[in-house]
Amino acid sequence: MKDKQFLMIPGPTPVPQTALIELGKAPLGHRSSEFSTILKETYENLKWLFQTKNHVFIYTSSGTGAMEAALANILNPGDKVLSLIIGNFGERLAKISTTRGANVERMQVNFGQTIDPQILKERLAQDINKEIKVITLTHSETSTGCANPLKELMEIIRGHGAISVVDGVTSVGAMDVKPDEWGIDILISGSQKGFMIPPGLSFLMASERAMKAYEECKYPSFYFDFKAYKKAFESDTTPYTPAVSLISALNETLKIMKNEGLENIFARHKRLALGLRKAIKAMGLKLFVEDDTKASYSITSILPPDGITVADIRKVLKEDFDIVVADGQNDLKGKIFRMGTLGYVCERDVIGAIGALELTLKKLGANIELGNGVKAFLESLIA
Amino acid sequence: MKDKQFLMIPGPTPVPQTALIELGKAPLGHRSSEFSTILKETYENLKWLFQTKNHVFIYTSSGTGAMEAALANILNPGDKVLSLIIGNFGERLAKISTTRGANVERMQVNFGQTIDPQILKERLAQDINKEIKVITLTHSETSTGCANPLKELMEIIRGHGAISVVDGVTSVGAMDVKPDEWGIDILISGSQKGFMIPPGLSFLMASERAMKAYEECKYPSFYFDFKAYKKAFESDTTPYTPAVSLISALNETLKIMKNEGLENIFARHKRLALGLRKAIKAMGLKLFVEDDTKASYSITSILPPDGITVADIRKVLKEDFDIVVADGQNDLKGKIFRMGTLGYVCERDVIGAIGALELTLKKLGANIELGNGVKAFLESLIA
Repeated sequence: MKDKQFLMIPGPTPVPQTALIELGKAPLGHRSSEFSTILKETYENLKWLFQTKNHVFIYTSSGTGAMEAALANILNPGDKVLSLIIGNFGERLAKISTTRGANVERMQVNFGQTIDPQILKERLAQDINKEIKVITLTHSETSTGCANPLKELMEIIRGHGAISVVDGVTSVGAMDVKPDEWGIDILISGSQKGFMIPPGLSFLMASERAMKAYEECKYPSFYFDFKAYKKAFESDTTPYTPAVSLISALNETLKIMKNEGLENIFARHKRLALGLRKAIKAMGLKLFVEDDTKASYSITSILPPDGITVADIRKVLKEDFDIVVADGQNDLKGKIFRMGTLGYVCERDVIGAIGALELTLKKLGANIELGNGVKAFLESLIA
Repeated sequence: MKDKQFLMIPGPTPVPQTALIELGKAPLGHRSSEFSTILKETYENLKWLFQTKNHVFIYTSSGTGAMEAALANILNPGDKVLSLIIGNFGERLAKISTTRGANVERMQVNFGQTIDPQILKERLAQDINKEIKVITLTHSETSTGCANPLKELMEIIRGHGAISVVDGVTSVGAMDVKPDEWGIDILISGSQKGFMIPPGLSFLMASERAMKAYEECKYPSFYFDFKAYKKAFESDTTPYTPAVSLISALNETLKIMKNEGLENIFARHKRLALGLRKAIKAMGLKLFVEDDTKASYSITSILPPDGITVADIRKVLKEDFDIVVADGQNDLKGKIFRMGTLGYVCERDVIGAIGALELTLKKLGANIELGNGVKAFLESLIA
């Protein structure tokens, strides 16, 4: 049915009408007082959403741009970086560090697992000379559906003193992240995730410690330059022409989020994700991340039943029900499918999607009793 | 009057309804076959618009992002760069080169002037050992309204053999640029200019020579990496999540442009800009760039009459007539105002703007006879 598509991938996520209408308006001049007013409000609300007193820069780029921004502004060739890797996006931070000439050590777990705080603690205890300058890590790993115990890991990192670069692409605006309280130095995210607008903007919070590391960076990126964005932030502007339409849309979605409230937003994501996990199990399917305490609340990875392919499940969901779910990435391609409950998603969206998944599996010959999944989800909501 | 604003600045420029409607639609998944089909068509039409057989990468960034991309992918610390500077944006290419550790030599003229091919020829003749690796230059300088004699300059640069990086931000899609024929290695532009969509995308054409220079680059940008974008271009995709809504809108505006035809687009920009210049003179005002052969066809810089400030002209134009024109930048702030005839602009837009400018000047106490400007413009159209 035309215009009925439900993007249940980990981004782009569904966009509220209010934001779409902003996007469909003629763009404002980026140096106009009207736009400056919007930007001022957006900056303030971003600080609220990021739960920080630090500046939150808006880059016109993908989330990967913010990843590069994070590292390009603080690393010099030869710097030692410890990258905690639980999936593809953790690996990306390691790769970017390498392209900046850093000496990268990887602490990697099997995908589907998270970093064990004890192992990190032991590794950092060995770093007596504090050679590790930067530690990169992921909160919610979009490629696996795992979420690291960020608060615990940050406590250990803070004890060591390295600069922390945290990928919050699918956690900010969905799961609780407290950068100031937990001591995160750089926290990044992207517009097409919890922020409920299309891709094109990324966000970067930089602490004072991060700004100090920037001062020692020999060749920081010009386009992503921390100092230029800091100065612009303080004058309600941007250093270069930003994607004004996306920022106007963001200003609207941030108001929607403020109205819902942080606690409610986090509770909704938790409720929907844990409920979906119950439904998946009730349908007899297996979760890629078995332990609820290691699961992301933004994205749930599911193994297809024996004899049914991920490709077929995605095809039927799309063709029969206008629902788009994601395949696994790289080595996980064809092994898992991923359902997002990220951003502008409510109970009835997930009820509908679970029902559609049941019908899809039935059509593909799975031995399931219709309704079990939906029942488990409904029950989880009143538990 | 609501929604009547006419952006006569050098970007963002007016956006056709067809493109606004695309922007207001729910975004497609960036890895879907539907989006891949759009991207394939967009890539092909970009090559047409850029008049090239080379790849044209789409970056989710401002034009400055493409500037950084150009230099970050080919420069190593210590490389010698010659920057031809006729305004702020030429200076920006020099600055970015410096941030990459290059050894930058500036060939700078008074703003309002263009590079003299003879002087460039003499400088390059002195470079017997071919120490200059890269030459950066601007086609249409957005900050002054000048246009360099690009074809002539390129002939000299080609004779020398340096890699050429050309800022075509306000020329591609407005003025004739033939990268393959003229031997341009890297040509960049931005979405909110001749491409008629809001800011958020930038474009970069890379020649085979540019790709070879990339191979020797030690620390190319990860986000803007030439090789990743080349590979993606060949598979109708992008390396990272792009601003899908803007690309869908771009696909529509490129079709509009194809329908109008390159020659017609260039002729329209020339006609409107030269006509506006005639009108300005007929009103008794002075042009910042006096020589028609040195003028950009995208942007016209005008000196305010004695006793009237640029700020007042901009204020009255905006408040009484919903027309936004640009101030000068940096040293030129308050000394000139700039009127764009770039992108989605037609005869009646310019007639209206000239009339409004006449009324504005009259209101501000200028000694002008109403109608002279409009008359000169109308006459220029049938000349």
